[in-house]
Amino acid sequence: MDKIRIGIVGYGNIGKGVELAVARNDDMELKAVFTRRSPADISIATETAAVMHIDDMAAMKEDIDVMVLCGGSATDLPVMGPEIVENFNTIDSFDTHARIPEYFENVDKAAKDGGKVGIISVGWDPGMFSLNRLYAESILAQGSTYTFWGKGVSQGHSDAIRRVEGVKNGIQYTVPVEKAVERVRSGEEPQLTTREKHLRECYVVPEDGADLKAIEQAIKTMPNYFDDYETTVTFITEEELKENHGKMPHGGFVIRSGETGTEGSKHIIEYSLKLDSNPEFTASVLVCYARAAYRLSKNGETGAKTVFDIPPVLLSKKTPEQLRAELL
Amino acid sequence: MDKIRIGIVGYGNIGKGVELAVARNDDMELKAVFTRRSPADISIATETAAVMHIDDMAAMKEDIDVMVLCGGSATDLPVMGPEIVENFNTIDSFDTHARIPEYFENVDKAAKDGGKVGIISVGWDPGMFSLNRLYAESILAQGSTYTFWGKGVSQGHSDAIRRVEGVKNGIQYTVPVEKAVERVRSGEEPQLTTREKHLRECYVVPEDGADLKAIEQAIKTMPNYFDDYETTVTFITEEELKENHGKMPHGGFVIRSGETGTEGSKHIIEYSLKLDSNPEFTASVLVCYARAAYRLSKNGETGAKTVFDIPPVLLSKKTPEQLRAELL
Repeated sequence: MDKIRIGIVGYGNIGKGVELAVARNDDMELKAVFTRRSPADISIATETAAVMHIDDMAAMKEDIDVMVLCGGSATDLPVMGPEIVENFNTIDSFDTHARIPEYFENVDKAAKDGGKVGIISVGWDPGMFSLNRLYAESILAQGSTYTFWGKGVSQGHSDAIRRVEGVKNGIQYTVPVEKAVERVRSGEEPQLTTREKHLRECYVVPEDGADLKAIEQAIKTMPNYFDDYETTVTFITEEELKENHGKMPHGGFVIRSGETGTEGSKHIIEYSLKLDSNPEFTASVLVCYARAAYRLSKNGETGAKTVFDIPPVLLSKKTPEQLRAELL
Repeated sequence: MDKIRIGIVGYGNIGKGVELAVARNDDMELKAVFTRRSPADISIATETAAVMHIDDMAAMKEDIDVMVLCGGSATDLPVMGPEIVENFNTIDSFDTHARIPEYFENVDKAAKDGGKVGIISVGWDPGMFSLNRLYAESILAQGSTYTFWGKGVSQGHSDAIRRVEGVKNGIQYTVPVEKAVERVRSGEEPQLTTREKHLRECYVVPEDGADLKAIEQAIKTMPNYFDDYETTVTFITEEELKENHGKMPHGGFVIRSGETGTEGSKHIIEYSLKLDSNPEFTASVLVCYARAAYRLSKNGETGAKTVFDIPPVLLSKKTPEQLRAELL
């Protein structure tokens, strides 16, 4: 069987994760990594794959079945997504929730023009969490859905900490509030805002001689990021940061509780993730959806898709017969 | 908008659950319940729907969009499924795992002959649990998947208890072994048989003057059902049985743990259900897949399908645009 030929665009944490995920799926092979940096400066793990400049992508049109786009959602993907999908099937993890409808339209138009498939917003949220919100809401027509994130590192909040005067380095964990989770799991269907559901734990390395009180105050009162949350600030050394906070764990859960029948039967549907490495897991989701994009494209489909549109059968390496016999 | 017109075949626990679930989805209406009993003997909750004999089904060919088949998997569905799908789109909860491939073939042939869609083996296991096994395995290519059932009532085991001499009534709960669940959630990937994962709790109402020791012994040593499991037998009165064991709760979880990358990052994906009423929840799953069958059929598709084949977007009452904006 021919292997699915994968290209990676952008070689940051997610791009590296995609490379590792491709290596774990023997029906796929990595053909090339595309970068905006100088290709000579980049060394990748896959000996059989090329490193090329992003401007030379067109030359690979016949050699790559699916491009996995690993750029950022703020500025990279809105431009790259529609551009690349004119020539390649694509997968991305576009995660600016508010701009998804607009991004979908742009990718859809370009993909249809180019006769390609672009699956957008793939990962765990958006992605697997979205799917679980959809399944749970479709089953329990009356009820309430809750999404909790964490415990996990928030890049945006970590960046915000590092911009505070006197801060040398720092990391922020988003942590679900136990009590809120318990209330939701009990089927009570409480009204909860995002901030009632989450705490923010900050680990901060101060600069020598910095005013710790002032740092703590500056973080806790930072508008939008921290002021409305219960926030803790713990000062640590650079060594402690490296030793204990070097990974990128994350996770969370989607819970829907609802009633059926006329006698108030309660049901709780919960989907949870506990991830050692957020980028490696996200990459693993991207890679199985790359398999779906390949199959859809072979089947003559074109346009933008989301996880909502993809029949689960297309994600697995197994045949439909095998899946029915082994997993149904 | 025209409502999706639903028929129910078989008016037991699941059939009644389907009726209640249809009432909770305002894009659907129940048109008729079909029964093998005398229709005059059956009173249903929906005033606007008919009760008809199963032999008179053909007369309703133009009036029903999807038939939800609520017969048993042992003898009813293998016959009824292929027969009915020649004339109607169908959904069923066929759950004899070992016979699914054969049943799929039979329904597929009949459905294609009749130009209809038949979605088989819908519910939570098979059904939502199957889907979660597939998604989790596709994402984490290396790893182990575990399914735990319970705490919940097993009909088959309850029936087996009631056949024991001296037993007036009884009920059996399948209960996951806490320690096994913890080992799986830790990411250890232990080797576990079904019996290492589950306990069997029996609540038994003895006949007057029965030999309790003999009953306990007969249950605990019953081949296939109990002898290989850790089994507890608790004697209760008929009143206690009614009061404390009158519901049909169930649930369980599908857990996959696996590794990504080269540094052994571990991930745990867990899907869990906690259900007050097994039949009402199963019925709610059937009903949202009835919506998918209707849409697939409108779209010209025919043949047998399983949950693996259905794009999630087809399950929701919401439009694709709404779903992308609200749930993605």
